[in-house]
Amino acid sequence: MKILSVDSSSITASVGLLEINKNNNIKIISEFFINAGLTHSQTLAPMIDILLKNSDTNINNIDLFGVTVGPGSFTGLRIGLSIIKGMAVALNKSCVGVSSLEAAAYNYYDFCDNNIIISCMDARRDQVYNSVFETKNNKLIRILPDNVCSIKELYDKIIDKLKNFTGCVKFVGDGADLCYDYFLNNNNNINFCDIDITKKYIKASSIGILAYETYNKSGAQLPEDVNPVYLRLSQAERLLLEKNK
Amino acid sequence: MKILSVDSSSITASVGLLEINKNNNIKIISEFFINAGLTHSQTLAPMIDILLKNSDTNINNIDLFGVTVGPGSFTGLRIGLSIIKGMAVALNKSCVGVSSLEAAAYNYYDFCDNNIIISCMDARRDQVYNSVFETKNNKLIRILPDNVCSIKELYDKIIDKLKNFTGCVKFVGDGADLCYDYFLNNNNNINFCDIDITKKYIKASSIGILAYETYNKSGAQLPEDVNPVYLRLSQAERLLLEKNK
Repeated sequence: MKILSVDSSSITASVGLLEINKNNNIKIISEFFINAGLTHSQTLAPMIDILLKNSDTNINNIDLFGVTVGPGSFTGLRIGLSIIKGMAVALNKSCVGVSSLEAAAYNYYDFCDNNIIISCMDARRDQVYNSVFETKNNKLIRILPDNVCSIKELYDKIIDKLKNFTGCVKFVGDGADLCYDYFLNNNNNINFCDIDITKKYIKASSIGILAYETYNKSGAQLPEDVNPVYLRLSQAERLLLEKNK
Repeated sequence: MKILSVDSSSITASVGLLEINKNNNIKIISEFFINAGLTHSQTLAPMIDILLKNSDTNINNIDLFGVTVGPGSFTGLRIGLSIIKGMAVALNKSCVGVSSLEAAAYNYYDFCDNNIIISCMDARRDQVYNSVFETKNNKLIRILPDNVCSIKELYDKIIDKLKNFTGCVKFVGDGADLCYDYFLNNNNNINFCDIDITKKYIKASSIGILAYETYNKSGAQLPEDVNPVYLRLSQAERLLLEKNK
């Protein structure tokens, strides 16, 4: 079984190809990551093409498509979802949508037990998309659901749990620096780890693995059922609501 | 400052592009990883070309080249070194050679303190290239130098240290499974972690970061001074020695 996965939910873009053998062993065949400030609409399709060609794999041999459904950049999500849904429909294959915050946290899923991973993406307008996980037995245990709020609200919600915590607290995602600075300024008794540049952003291989786990647990989705999770209104919708008030 | 880094020391190939700004902050611009069983001589040069084109970067703007010098596959090392040294000579730029075992271990450099990383690559002939590191303050502290020996010899050398250890023991590199199985069969009282497929192999970004650290500490090398570290004789040399005995 081969899985093609894609992320363009934040400033970075990533494409991955996974192979699952008969013993359910996962192999990362290839992965391409870009954080060059270029537009996803320009880079993402060529990245997929390059990845498949250089992995000697035909698009017809992909069995399952994985994609981050959000939260994140509205435009970024639409680009990733459009490409993946387009290919899945054309090839009559299934998809699995993955939380972008969980995909970012997955960089630390095999961290030692009892550490906290705070996954956060810059949502602009003084807000961050966020979710919180704990590492346990090579798994991420979700502590808070995907959410959008101010950093202060996130801090107030989680700080009591962190105070009683002896492990490390890691920040991941493109909002990691924003949150790290705020948390550290407000409490320097907690073991907030430096942000690691090699594990800060979403890797498409993580999306492939998470998509495969979901597929195993609850099956795949039809392309038309994989939809973006914005968590809040777009600017246009917000302005229309205000206008109509 | 821009750093292009390359690894083809084992079965995988990886190419990375890093940018260092004036505040010494490192940014991973792009990374391309392949484990598709294709020949490095076919894949590596196109991977570099693709990475630069898709990162909107001209080869003339690369300031420093990083490459894994070994230990590892003799042919693989020669391919990576030839490409990097060729480009550095042509463009009159500097290089830095990086240990492939340290580059693999670097996947866990920001692991919590007091964990052991055993980096091992399959050296065939019942041997593994190996080195051992401890994690401390976001750094890898080297416990054993790069070496080649049987897994049993490695086990005998390190087991006393592991017995007194309360942290986790992680295996990385393409010899990780071989070593993990042997260690676990011989001692199941130690916290040997499952091997993580997302952090098992060398990432070119790690080579770029390690090359930059070396460059800062002790400067760069001339291309002609960057040479493979084989750690043992090639088959041809071994047979010649035996013949001449």
